[in-house]
Amino acid sequence: MIKVGIIGSTGYAGAELVRILLAHREAEIKWYGSRSYIDKKYAEVYQNMFQLTDEICKGEDINQLAAEVDVIFTATPQGLCASLVNEDVLSKTKVIDLSADFRIKDVKTYEEWYKIEHKSPKFIEEAVYGLCEINRDKVKEARLIANPGCYPTCSFLSIYPLLKERLIDPSTIIIDAKSGTSGAGRGAKVDNLYCEVNENIKAYGVAVHRHTPEIEEQLSYAADENVIINFTPHLVPMNRGILVTAYASLKKSVTYSEVKMVYDKYYADEKFVRVLNKDVCPQTKWVEGSNYVDVNFKIDSRTNRIIMMGAMDNLVKGAAGQAVQNMNIMFGLNESEGLELVPMFP
Amino acid sequence: MIKVGIIGSTGYAGAELVRILLAHREAEIKWYGSRSYIDKKYAEVYQNMFQLTDEICKGEDINQLAAEVDVIFTATPQGLCASLVNEDVLSKTKVIDLSADFRIKDVKTYEEWYKIEHKSPKFIEEAVYGLCEINRDKVKEARLIANPGCYPTCSFLSIYPLLKERLIDPSTIIIDAKSGTSGAGRGAKVDNLYCEVNENIKAYGVAVHRHTPEIEEQLSYAADENVIINFTPHLVPMNRGILVTAYASLKKSVTYSEVKMVYDKYYADEKFVRVLNKDVCPQTKWVEGSNYVDVNFKIDSRTNRIIMMGAMDNLVKGAAGQAVQNMNIMFGLNESEGLELVPMFP
Amino acid sequence: MIKVGIIGSTGYAGAELVRILLAHREAEIKWYGSRSYIDKKYAEVYQNMFQLTDEICKGEDINQLAAEVDVIFTATPQGLCASLVNEDVLSKTKVIDLSADFRIKDVKTYEEWYKIEHKSPKFIEEAVYGLCEINRDKVKEARLIANPGCYPTCSFLSIYPLLKERLIDPSTIIIDAKSGTSGAGRGAKVDNLYCEVNENIKAYGVAVHRHTPEIEEQLSYAADENVIINFTPHLVPMNRGILVTAYASLKKSVTYSEVKMVYDKYYADEKFVRVLNKDVCPQTKWVEGSNYVDVNFKIDSRTNRIIMMGAMDNLVKGAAGQAVQNMNIMFGLNESEGLELVPMFP
Amino acid sequence: MIKVGIIGSTGYAGAELVRILLAHREAEIKWYGSRSYIDKKYAEVYQNMFQLTDEICKGEDINQLAAEVDVIFTATPQGLCASLVNEDVLSKTKVIDLSADFRIKDVKTYEEWYKIEHKSPKFIEEAVYGLCEINRDKVKEARLIANPGCYPTCSFLSIYPLLKERLIDPSTIIIDAKSGTSGAGRGAKVDNLYCEVNENIKAYGVAVHRHTPEIEEQLSYAADENVIINFTPHLVPMNRGILVTAYASLKKSVTYSEVKMVYDKYYADEKFVRVLNKDVCPQTKWVEGSNYVDVNFKIDSRTNRIIMMGAMDNLVKGAAGQAVQNMNIMFGLNESEGLELVPMFP
Repeated sequence: MIKVGIIGSTGYAGAELVRILLAHREAEIKWYGSRSYIDKKYAEVYQNMFQLTDEICKGEDINQLAAEVDVIFTATPQGLCASLVNEDVLSKTKVIDLSADFRIKDVKTYEEWYKIEHKSPKFIEEAVYGLCEINRDKVKEARLIANPGCYPTCSFLSIYPLLKERLIDPSTIIIDAKSGTSGAGRGAKVDNLYCEVNENIKAYGVAVHRHTPEIEEQLSYAADENVIINFTPHLVPMNRGILVTAYASLKKSVTYSEVKMVYDKYYADEKFVRVLNKDVCPQTKWVEGSNYVDVNFKIDSRTNRIIMMGAMDNLVKGAAGQAVQNMNIMFGLNESEGLELVPMFP
Repeated sequence: MIKVGIIGSTGYAGAELVRILLAHREAEIKWYGSRSYIDKKYAEVYQNMFQLTDEICKGEDINQLAAEVDVIFTATPQGLCASLVNEDVLSKTKVIDLSADFRIKDVKTYEEWYKIEHKSPKFIEEAVYGLCEINRDKVKEARLIANPGCYPTCSFLSIYPLLKERLIDPSTIIIDAKSGTSGAGRGAKVDNLYCEVNENIKAYGVAVHRHTPEIEEQLSYAADENVIINFTPHLVPMNRGILVTAYASLKKSVTYSEVKMVYDKYYADEKFVRVLNKDVCPQTKWVEGSNYVDVNFKIDSRTNRIIMMGAMDNLVKGAAGQAVQNMNIMFGLNESEGLELVPMFP
Repeated sequence: MIKVGIIGSTGYAGAELVRILLAHREAEIKWYGSRSYIDKKYAEVYQNMFQLTDEICKGEDINQLAAEVDVIFTATPQGLCASLVNEDVLSKTKVIDLSADFRIKDVKTYEEWYKIEHKSPKFIEEAVYGLCEINRDKVKEARLIANPGCYPTCSFLSIYPLLKERLIDPSTIIIDAKSGTSGAGRGAKVDNLYCEVNENIKAYGVAVHRHTPEIEEQLSYAADENVIINFTPHLVPMNRGILVTAYASLKKSVTYSEVKMVYDKYYADEKFVRVLNKDVCPQTKWVEGSNYVDVNFKIDSRTNRIIMMGAMDNLVKGAAGQAVQNMNIMFGLNESEGLELVPMFP
Repeated sequence: MIKVGIIGSTGYAGAELVRILLAHREAEIKWYGSRSYIDKKYAEVYQNMFQLTDEICKGEDINQLAAEVDVIFTATPQGLCASLVNEDVLSKTKVIDLSADFRIKDVKTYEEWYKIEHKSPKFIEEAVYGLCEINRDKVKEARLIANPGCYPTCSFLSIYPLLKERLIDPSTIIIDAKSGTSGAGRGAKVDNLYCEVNENIKAYGVAVHRHTPEIEEQLSYAADENVIINFTPHLVPMNRGILVTAYASLKKSVTYSEVKMVYDKYYADEKFVRVLNKDVCPQTKWVEGSNYVDVNFKIDSRTNRIIMMGAMDNLVKGAAGQAVQNMNIMFGLNESEGLELVPMFP
């Protein structure tokens, strides 16, 4: 039984880790860390967990934690994990960081976009970017996982095969993304109040959203050249779900079947990436509560562009689910253990 | 492996049966019945099931079905199950009816409230009302289960202990219930369009809702006298969830602890009924996607009344979940097999 | 042109005052008071007002305000208006208080339920409870209006005719109310975050909600005896709207027509109270954005109870609209000036 | 007093015409046309209109109508207006068509995208495309107005100044649009049920949506060259509102101020187009219920693209509001009569 500690267990991503791990047959949560709710019962913070766990929230002393558990998930604000992690911790336990601290290899880029100083740049190189379908082999050996961001996961998986196969012009990529509100976290802010979000949609962080360099870095690896994109996130009045609509110019004329084959080449054996049938547009509701990413595409011969679409649950494949998938890979378990979650509809 | 057939698998309750049974380790769906989608892939009707089932929707010939499966779930409009069931079917297979056809023992009451003729009254007596926590022993032996309605399940479980223990005056019971929209089914009606339901709340079926006699019958058994109630359902802009707020006059002065003990007496050992801590009001979101019913109460000494509250997911404990719970009991399985669903929040 | 000052103009009720008064032909807002946004443009706090007002938020010095305007609206937390008002202010200007400070005549009751000391009890007697349809004549002469609470307005108007005409037993009244989330205000609290409210319904303040004594006091005047009730509010995932479902036992057997005549007796000439046709249940969406209260009833001969229903927009008739209606009456204007708002659907 | 007839008054756009015209001081609805609800009271179809209109729904005999009213609004499915209109009607009355029948000058393009035969192509040339801010002078003289589509209105107004001033490359325009559900109409379809739309977002009509050629035609006029675009609409879980996020490559390096001046050049004197302040992203909620379009932009120097954004209420400026604005212009009234609607928030 893998012993698990969670730092930041009382945020939405932390709570989703708890939801998934409580049903995981090979892991057991030993430590519910929280800054705001120390000494409070976890099930009083998240009443859905009543009678499912009787544990008390503890503080977040990573050194003590490292001595007691096999793996630590950090579901914390940017900068915290980087300030906590050290060689001693990594020598005793594995760390899966759900924040952005170790996702970007170039520390200057990180510091520019996140406006904070990186406290442990020496571990950036070692950290493995935990996009399981792409970096599975590296994940197996990793001590420190940079769990991908929600937008980057959905964006990258929607575009990757076409970029890898050189079918699209990297300089033309535009990503228009839409997210449910849980992505904004459980902090009490006016902008996230029910009455501000409900019956409303808006773009935000236009041209400056922090997930931009993360997406660009991964796309650059795939394209084997430097990729600069437009990325525009929108806030949608729903709890969960991310939908990505991405645009790019085709490098040559292609048929539906040719493109479908390219997607299948990369995803046919991937349990958690579903390439939908022709003309079926991904919907966030069809993946809610599950670890799936649904992708599809449409060729527009009038403009010689291709529209790539992807849908997933931002808290599962976009956060906690992928984190558990990484844990499964790191510990040699069945990769889908605990993640055989059937999407809930309606 | 129990072989399962579903008649009405393409309605919302049917789809929830599929969601639950696909993860059930001892049952396998052999027959996806549907009137509207025969020969269509089930995963094209419910795209969330893409790659999870490759089955085709079939017709609803109950005799053929009875020869092939161990248990038939009927998730169909009122009257259909009663018109299909016969001795031959029941001698070959078990039937769990999610409609109201066999819930009410008095056929005249059924016909008055439902405005249809009952086509097989001879099986009413035999049918067991499948409120698992109350009728577990009878369920074990049953061939035909009348799976309880959503409102009745939540209403009854919220009130039952106090009525059984004679703490409340049965003639004063008022039930004010609120339901998500999935309870109205997947039929295309103007009243259930997004724009009609969203940003709106209304009462409906006031003083004439068909679940009234079902609730009254079960309360009458508990009270051992004839109980007549007011029951008012409301339509709430959400997909899932039922909340019951019930009122009754206390027969004598009681303390919080005394009432708590009464609830615990009946539910302490019931996995799927959670008696919440003092002053915690049930919320539908805390049980979403799970088979739990959360109940609690508040004594109002000013009016000498008690307010009883209950929350559950109308599609799980209020329909498909309880149906599977009944199946588990009938086949001697672990009662919670397939139902260890952690509530999803947010 | 009436000069208006608003203390608390940046809360939701304050913003609704602004929305209504900007289209009012006989009033002009001279002072946008705010504690949190002093010196900020009002249209930057509420971007919907962009180009509709260019005013800057000012502080809340009531003495200065009194010298400059004809009427002050206070849309502020409980206790503030009572701490500001004084004889000098009232001698110069009229005050319409949207908080609860002057609604309850018995100061001890106020202090018990609100847990705060009343800072100017000497004005309580003078204050007129501004339920326009009931107290129109007194409002005309008033200097200080206690603008009714949202729940009390909807509850009282739904029940009033039957109580006044002695058709129902006051000791049996139970009010089950449902409100949209704007009633909770614009304060940044976890409980009011989108993800906490959406797809959820709960009761709150069970048996202890502060609107209880306010409703009771008004019902007692109507019944000419002391009335004690049960009042249970619920939080509904929508922005606006209150629905009241009230129950009471009938004192004698009555027909639909008899009860309808009683409602018509009191409301036929009231523009803002609409008695719906037989069997039409009020829906909050049908009054959204308007000053209407829609009421109706259903007799249940099985239980000898009557179910009374009312729907209104909590921010209009339940707050800002009624406040403007009071202003119109106080200044001898057409009572519906600025309030001819057609409900918005969908 | 202008006499108004509405064909299709019981759809959502028709109902919005009623909402606006009931408060219009120079127009009066004389004819509530409806196919589905003939002889039913209008206020029974739209209960929000109870006591606001007592009229009965009539049939849709356009010749009779033409004899009785000064202007006819047709808020009907594609093809109907084209099949009804004739020289006799146009000689007696003005027609404002909210459908697409007369929006596209090339009849073949219309027939290809709409898959129906055009029944009166001879009036296409005469019809004026009623985008008031652009074609005001032509509208004044028109007998037949093609009221613009919702997506085209918001898309075009967001892009127009930059295209007109040759700041962007027309071949790079990509429009990613998001709409509330009222745009889908009041027809009873499974896809528009509450439970299908709520907690969900999807793209639809990808690369084939019928508003594409309408947008392209108008953009082509502005650019003075043939413009081909990508247009992708999305369905958002909200009743009202359209948000457009459009992308294009800049033809030369520009500053914020330069672009702002271009927007101001075209819109500074336009009451219903609000160019927001720097870095304020349009939100649909800020224009709800009003005739405003809020636009803004963001320059991304990294990619040399500009992101143009627009938000409006699809039923007001995107349908009924603009139709009334056209009527006002045609009849020489104040252009904003009946349209001084303050946006409702929250």
